[in-house]
Order: sequence, then C-alpha cells, then structure tokens
Amino acid sequence: MNRVLITGARGFIGRHALRPLAERGYEIVAPTSGAPSSGDPVVRWVACDLLAAGAAERLIAETQPTHLLHLAWYTEHGRFWNGRENLPWLAASVQLVDAFAAAGGRRAVIAGSCTEYDWSAPQPCCESSTPLRPHTLYGTCKKALFEVSSAHAALAGISLAWGRIFLLHGPHEGAARFVPSLVRAMLAGRPAPMTHGLQRRDFLHVADVADAFAALLDSAVTGPVNIGSGEPVRLLDVATHIAHRLDGIPLLHAGALPARPDDPDALYPDVARLRDEVGWAPHFSLADGLDDSIAWWRSQDAAVTGP
Amino acid sequence: MNRVLITGARGFIGRHALRPLAERGYEIVAPTSGAPSSGDPVVRWVACDLLAAGAAERLIAETQPTHLLHLAWYTEHGRFWNGRENLPWLAASVQLVDAFAAAGGRRAVIAGSCTEYDWSAPQPCCESSTPLRPHTLYGTCKKALFEVSSAHAALAGISLAWGRIFLLHGPHEGAARFVPSLVRAMLAGRPAPMTHGLQRRDFLHVADVADAFAALLDSAVTGPVNIGSGEPVRLLDVATHIAHRLDGIPLLHAGALPARPDDPDALYPDVARLRDEVGWAPHFSLADGLDDSIAWWRSQDAAVTGP
Repeated sequence: MNRVLITGARGFIGRHALRPLAERGYEIVAPTSGAPSSGDPVVRWVACDLLAAGAAERLIAETQPTHLLHLAWYTEHGRFWNGRENLPWLAASVQLVDAFAAAGGRRAVIAGSCTEYDWSAPQPCCESSTPLRPHTLYGTCKKALFEVSSAHAALAGISLAWGRIFLLHGPHEGAARFVPSLVRAMLAGRPAPMTHGLQRRDFLHVADVADAFAALLDSAVTGPVNIGSGEPVRLLDVATHIAHRLDGIPLLHAGALPARPDDPDALYPDVARLRDEVGWAPHFSLADGLDDSIAWWRSQDAAVTGP
Repeated sequence: MNRVLITGARGFIGRHALRPLAERGYEIVAPTSGAPSSGDPVVRWVACDLLAAGAAERLIAETQPTHLLHLAWYTEHGRFWNGRENLPWLAASVQLVDAFAAAGGRRAVIAGSCTEYDWSAPQPCCESSTPLRPHTLYGTCKKALFEVSSAHAALAGISLAWGRIFLLHGPHEGAARFVPSLVRAMLAGRPAPMTHGLQRRDFLHVADVADAFAALLDSAVTGPVNIGSGEPVRLLDVATHIAHRLDGIPLLHAGALPARPDDPDALYPDVARLRDEVGWAPHFSLADGLDDSIAWWRSQDAAVTGP
C-alpha cells in the first residue's frame, strides 16, 4: 500500500488533490493546523502545525509515509512575494524532506513555482534550459529548496520530482487575485479595472493543477516538471471571456491599472515533460475552466449576499 | 555597544575569532552545546544546541545581538561533503538569520565556502563573475543559505556579508586533513603518502581566517567576499616545506595516493575585495603559518605520547 503524506491539503490546490490521489489508490494522511475533521472516508487528518518546532520529524515518525506531496507554503496575497514568512517555510520544508528520506520514504513531489525562472529569458520556460534567477524572496526560497532537496534525494536514494506551477484559478482562489477580482466585480456590476492585458500567460484550472500533481506523484519522472496547459493566452483574452459570460464588457477597463515594473510581457511553460513523460493533459479547456470558476464565485457571492 | 553573537565559537575557526573580536571592541556572546565555561573574561557563554527545536529564536531573544558571526556547521571530516546533517544545519541557519533580523540585528557575517563555486571555471574564483555550481550537498546548502539570506537581508534592511573560505590549517585542525596528516606522519617517522600534489590551492593559517572574519564583520562591506591569501601554491610545495622542517623528505611519497576524480587542478580565490574593500591582509606568511602548525602538532603529539 502506498501512503501519501500531503501537506497543504486544505489549501487552494491541496483540497482538489485528495480525490485524484484516492482514485490512484493512495492511502492519504494530511496534517492540518485546524481541527481534524472526522467522517471523511479517504483522508486521515493529523493535527500538526508544520512550522512548530520539531513538527516535521514528529509528523513523519507518526505517519510513516511512502510518498510525500508537499504543497504547503505561505501564500498570503500581496505579502508572500517578499515576506519573512518564507524563511520558516523553507526551514520546515528542509526538515520535512530530511525526515521523510531518513524514515525510508520512497517518492516525493514538491510544489515549485514559475517565480524560480529568470523572467527575462526567452519563452517558453523550459526545465532544462531556462536559467533560474528568482527576483522575489518567495522564488529564492523555492529555488533553494529545489536545489537542496534534489541534491539530497540523489544521495539518499529517494525519487523526487518538482512541479513548477504557473498561473491557476478556480474555487477557493484568493478573492484579490486576477480571475476572482474580475468575476466578482462584474457579478456585482462594479467596474473591473485591469492592466493593459497584453501579457501572455498560461492558466490552468486548480483541479487540473491538483490532478497534474497526483499524476506526477504516481509517475517515475524525476526533476523539475512545469505544470501548465501549454496554451498561453493574453490576460485580456481571459478577461474578455469572463466579461462575455457575465455581460460585463462595459465594465472591463483594460489599461486602468499600471502594470508592475517587473511584470514580464510573456511567462509561460514548455509542458513537454508533463505531457510526454508524465502523460498528463488538462481536463478543462480554458473556456470550460473559466466557466467553472465563474459558477463557483456566483454561488459563493449568492450565498454571502443571500436571497 | 556592539554585541556579537558568534556561533561555532569552540570550533576550528571560531576559537581563533574571539580575541580579534574583543580587540575590535565587541561584547561577545557565544552559544555552546557543551558546558559553558566560566572565568573567560571576554566571552559570555550560553548553553544552546543550535539544532534543537526552536533554539535559534530563543537564543536571539535571550541575547539580543547587534551583530551575528555565524560560523557553526557540520564539519565531520569525510562525512560533511554529502551527509544529511547538512540539512538541519541549513534549516537552523535560516531560522537564525530570520530571528536575528526580526529582533533588530544590524550586521551579519556568515561563513560560506569555495565549494559553492563551479570548480571547472577558470581560476581565480571571483565573487562577481565565477558561476556558483556546487557539486556536494554541503556546497549546495551553503549556496542556498547565501542566496536566501542575501535576499532576506536586502528586504529586512540588515547589512550582510558572506565570507567564502578556501583552504586553511592550524591548531585544532582535524587530524585526518592534508597538513596534519603530513605533519603527524613525519613527526612519527611514518611514510607520508599524498596525491601527485600539482593541484594549486590557497592556504591561510586558521588564525588569519578568523581575523579576516572579524575584520569583515567590522567593515561595511556586503555580499560575498573570498577569504584567502591571494598567493596560490601547489600542494607539493606545502608538503615539501613541511618535510624540510621535519627532515621528512624521504618519508614524503607524492603520487602514492590517487587524486579524487572531482579534485580540480586549480582552486584559489581572487582576494581583491578582501584586500581592497575590507582592507585586510594575512599576518602569517605561508612558511610562518606552516611552522606554527608544525609546532602545535609537535606539542600535541608530545603531550599525548608523553616523555
């Protein structure tokens, strides 16, 4: 029996990863700093604050996982790029990987990020050729964990893959982020300002991101693997799709917000490793995925404002 | 008053750093996992195992240093290159730097290593132009700490320098390392095997390394700074000097040991930053330094074997 320890199981991606893991036959153990919920048939919740002193070692000793899917990190919108909270998450992650390997763990997959890449490099970002040069503390800590855990895995004899996430959207996304900010403004009939929107990006629905991580864990592929659709679009195309669905074209104000100075014109992945080596493809088209996000935000805002 | 927290104060380099720090007017606080010694006029010893859960944060809260000189790391000869012990040291170091900055620390200097550099790059190693590409877990963890602590220091507003150590020798060096192995063999009249010895390296006496760190801490120089003499020599020249002093020429067997496959022909630093920006130069010549090491080993081995 394969037993996976999944961190961040109540987070944006993690909550969508439980079913794909269960469907692939994994016994699932998930630390949570909130109250462990009972009655969930597929997950054994374990009360654990990963940042607490000595937590990683105790967690591994207590749960003895064969597989590790490490998604948890500090992700507060607007703060996580350069907040000092990245440092304890790096330290805890290093301790987690060390404890997992020392306890006989076999296969680990860790969530990396497109922020590890040099954003001034030609696109698409390729795992084997695009230089790593993060310009945020978040990206610097993720890259450090990538390099250290890769070197350690090779020595310790565990199989390790590193999934680099690009853009994503879907249920439970932070409300201030790109897709939710547009959807919610238009649902409320408010103006929806954005930047010029000509930036090319790669979007996945969060359920697809989670499924890709489950597939990656279940494969034998090692090293960095970009997680994306492989079909870059302009931000304005995403916004226009949302506006059409919500009769919000008059509300959409492209160019009303200044682009950040470090906002690259293009940032999207080469997904050949994910597609050909892992054998994974998205379930959602961009349009279907966005429609799902719209439906979820509509249900949320309806629940909040009430009939 | 400047109060420096020095880690590794009982280690190979740290024990030589206390006097240079005191001479520069620092109040010295030093964690030690052994019994704190009393009666030392210049050092306040604090019982602390830096690898214990939560230790770094407690140590900083208890001692409130303005300056940090972080020398401690795992250094067991033959094991430290790729031992898993590097991971907890990385985690503890990240926590230490984070806690130091959060508590209002102003200036930090951390011990890095020539193992961070790409050893196949043209020599000398230059801080600004030689690529970093460690090929050991030790070097990978040091490089990760360098990149993360540099990024964090810039954001947190603390001044940080990173001293990259090359080769060193002197009292209290590990007995299995290059200089002690030759000295002790010749003192005992045993054969002293070595590799071909044509490798070019840079050696400093450990007291000079420690003094360079104290000078670096006391300067305003930030970023990576190579710690070396700037006068590379061949290993065979070092061995021959020792052999001449100990009438050991017949015992010296250059070429008796195979060089490691990853042993570079040349590895030595450009020391322009240390010399011109920090304004530091070695006190020992190579010959004087080696004579001091020889004298120390002679006194040690005499003490052990007894009259």
